[in-house]
Amino acid sequence: MSSPYKYLKIENLGKLRKITISNPKLKNALNLQAYEELTDGLNRAATDDSVSIVAITGDGDYYSSGNDIKHFLTVIDPEKELIRANIVLKSMIQSFYTFPKLLVCVVNGPCIGIACSTAALCDVIYAVDTAYFYTPFSLLGLCAEGCASYTFSRILGKSKANEMLLLNHKLTAAEALQFNFVAKVYTKSELDTVLWPKIREQSELSRESICVTKKLQSKFDQKSLETACDAELKELYKRFSTDDFIQAVVNFIQRKSKL
Amino acid sequence: MSSPYKYLKIENLGKLRKITISNPKLKNALNLQAYEELTDGLNRAATDDSVSIVAITGDGDYYSSGNDIKHFLTVIDPEKELIRANIVLKSMIQSFYTFPKLLVCVVNGPCIGIACSTAALCDVIYAVDTAYFYTPFSLLGLCAEGCASYTFSRILGKSKANEMLLLNHKLTAAEALQFNFVAKVYTKSELDTVLWPKIREQSELSRESICVTKKLQSKFDQKSLETACDAELKELYKRFSTDDFIQAVVNFIQRKSKL
Amino acid sequence: MSSPYKYLKIENLGKLRKITISNPKLKNALNLQAYEELTDGLNRAATDDSVSIVAITGDGDYYSSGNDIKHFLTVIDPEKELIRANIVLKSMIQSFYTFPKLLVCVVNGPCIGIACSTAALCDVIYAVDTAYFYTPFSLLGLCAEGCASYTFSRILGKSKANEMLLLNHKLTAAEALQFNFVAKVYTKSELDTVLWPKIREQSELSRESICVTKKLQSKFDQKSLETACDAELKELYKRFSTDDFIQAVVNFIQRKSKL
Repeated sequence: MSSPYKYLKIENLGKLRKITISNPKLKNALNLQAYEELTDGLNRAATDDSVSIVAITGDGDYYSSGNDIKHFLTVIDPEKELIRANIVLKSMIQSFYTFPKLLVCVVNGPCIGIACSTAALCDVIYAVDTAYFYTPFSLLGLCAEGCASYTFSRILGKSKANEMLLLNHKLTAAEALQFNFVAKVYTKSELDTVLWPKIREQSELSRESICVTKKLQSKFDQKSLETACDAELKELYKRFSTDDFIQAVVNFIQRKSKL
Repeated sequence: MSSPYKYLKIENLGKLRKITISNPKLKNALNLQAYEELTDGLNRAATDDSVSIVAITGDGDYYSSGNDIKHFLTVIDPEKELIRANIVLKSMIQSFYTFPKLLVCVVNGPCIGIACSTAALCDVIYAVDTAYFYTPFSLLGLCAEGCASYTFSRILGKSKANEMLLLNHKLTAAEALQFNFVAKVYTKSELDTVLWPKIREQSELSRESICVTKKLQSKFDQKSLETACDAELKELYKRFSTDDFIQAVVNFIQRKSKL
Repeated sequence: MSSPYKYLKIENLGKLRKITISNPKLKNALNLQAYEELTDGLNRAATDDSVSIVAITGDGDYYSSGNDIKHFLTVIDPEKELIRANIVLKSMIQSFYTFPKLLVCVVNGPCIGIACSTAALCDVIYAVDTAYFYTPFSLLGLCAEGCASYTFSRILGKSKANEMLLLNHKLTAAEALQFNFVAKVYTKSELDTVLWPKIREQSELSRESICVTKKLQSKFDQKSLETACDAELKELYKRFSTDDFIQAVVNFIQRKSKL
């Protein structure tokens, strides 16, 4: 199926638009272009009358390994790139938490960093039993992003949320269910035989009705999500120039090259 | 036991007032009169000095099948009835979320629609293992009501809450426990042998102490509950005149008559 | 190891400061001096550059049996003592919810009353499988304290929170996990072989990164925690002079002396 994007596959299944993050050689890591494509993909779906539900998933064994740090390290002018990255990232995060239609996240494998934060901005998360959720911010010397400083403790309770956000705990699919982060866990084969047909069927439900209830709910969180997004990005920008981050990246690359 | 109500049974067990929704031929569906009776029942208990705890349950196998749509369809002037219904509904919802004493919900069977939303406004929910919780708003072309747009995601986490509110997921009693919606699940026989005696015993606890802690808690939610209730009813009123709703009701009636 | 405190043991394990509540003859009950020591211990750790993480635990089989009511009954001028107690209690609660670094609670046994409320103010709670959490406020004719009127329902869901806060439900470690109150449950032997080494290792993570994310999160709760703390203490002060409380204390002492 042809797609206007380099890092996304787009499919229309009736009124369901399926967006697949696709950069499998890099475990669907997201670089700046991928962020821009996701933003564009969501914004187009938001205003496309033929679309009732959007579901996001990943190509292959990963949902997404998160921000493509390696790519970031190769840019010529990091300072300038960082300013641009912040703007691009903010638009992407906003396109999630302002999305007016039903937004489903089908987590088909490991879901890391910004991919995990933005998953928590979707209305419903489903996960395969082999998936895990991982936000190693303090391992990288960074900080919460994608509104995770607001959403995580409200979903998982503060203990498990902080274990993830502050202590780099890898949340298994079973734990994600136990701590209310996902609505249901499926086996790999059930994703295709049970879940996708179900989502497709749900795209026939009254879109207006769904959007009205979604809007009623968002009233209570929208301002806090904006506040969280902005405050996080401001801190993140500062973190990128700290010794903590630079040392963490060096360690990260060394660990990778040893494997 | 005599009752001033047509659709409610009232019992006093020491300082416990037990309110039983009773319209078993219609699975305890609630029509406008039942709403008014519930409002009156709660308001009287609130100011009755002989009452320390109120517990609501259902007569027979259902807790309540929710709003009696069929009854609504038989009224002569639907437009006029709708305006009245909105006022009656609002008073009923308010009588739940402003109730100053301990309010326990004993869910003895399926708990549907507005009965489910208002259950979530009680302080503690207990359920029988065969119960389920069901809010098929988007199946009926309607929207969240009874403050569910505020309460559900705060209790269940947003994924499971949205599966219920947007995608008509039937929450089993086991899931209700897993997602923190109920405090405990009992077998049918335990309701009488364990739970009711326990609640009766709890009615001997310091009422003042309980009311003070309840009031301390409500400070943080009361305004949002009001906002939710009002915004939902405004949208609900609009939804009743949409083609979505009319078609959904036709489908609903046809499905019922096929069974 | 020497300690400047009577009721606390202080250990430094690398960048981890371990604070152990120690009054084992009284199940680590907290009297006014213990409150003041806890406040001082936390405030010093907050500004001590050699400390990255603080973990609180209890000496022996209890985490803490809560406020030492018996001690309170022996004071000469209860009225005066009560005013002082309120100020001391407030400082202690504040030292928890304003603590700027990672604060871990290792619940090694029963965790009761104010010890339970303040545990919920820590960033991460771990519990031994034999622990339980117990806030018998309405049994003592008292009311919620330590911000529990704000925190509990946000972590546990309102049903289980109210069962604890209003109906004196003893939450087992297994339930604490099920209702998201703790991040993980360990066996007694795992506390030493798995958990403490893990926490010590975590003290090597980027402190700055952790503190930034923690600060980002606290933005959304700090004002409510302050409001809760103040409103609760105001009500608590009133409760202490009620017949409810005096009768409850008499019952409590009689029950104890029968054992």
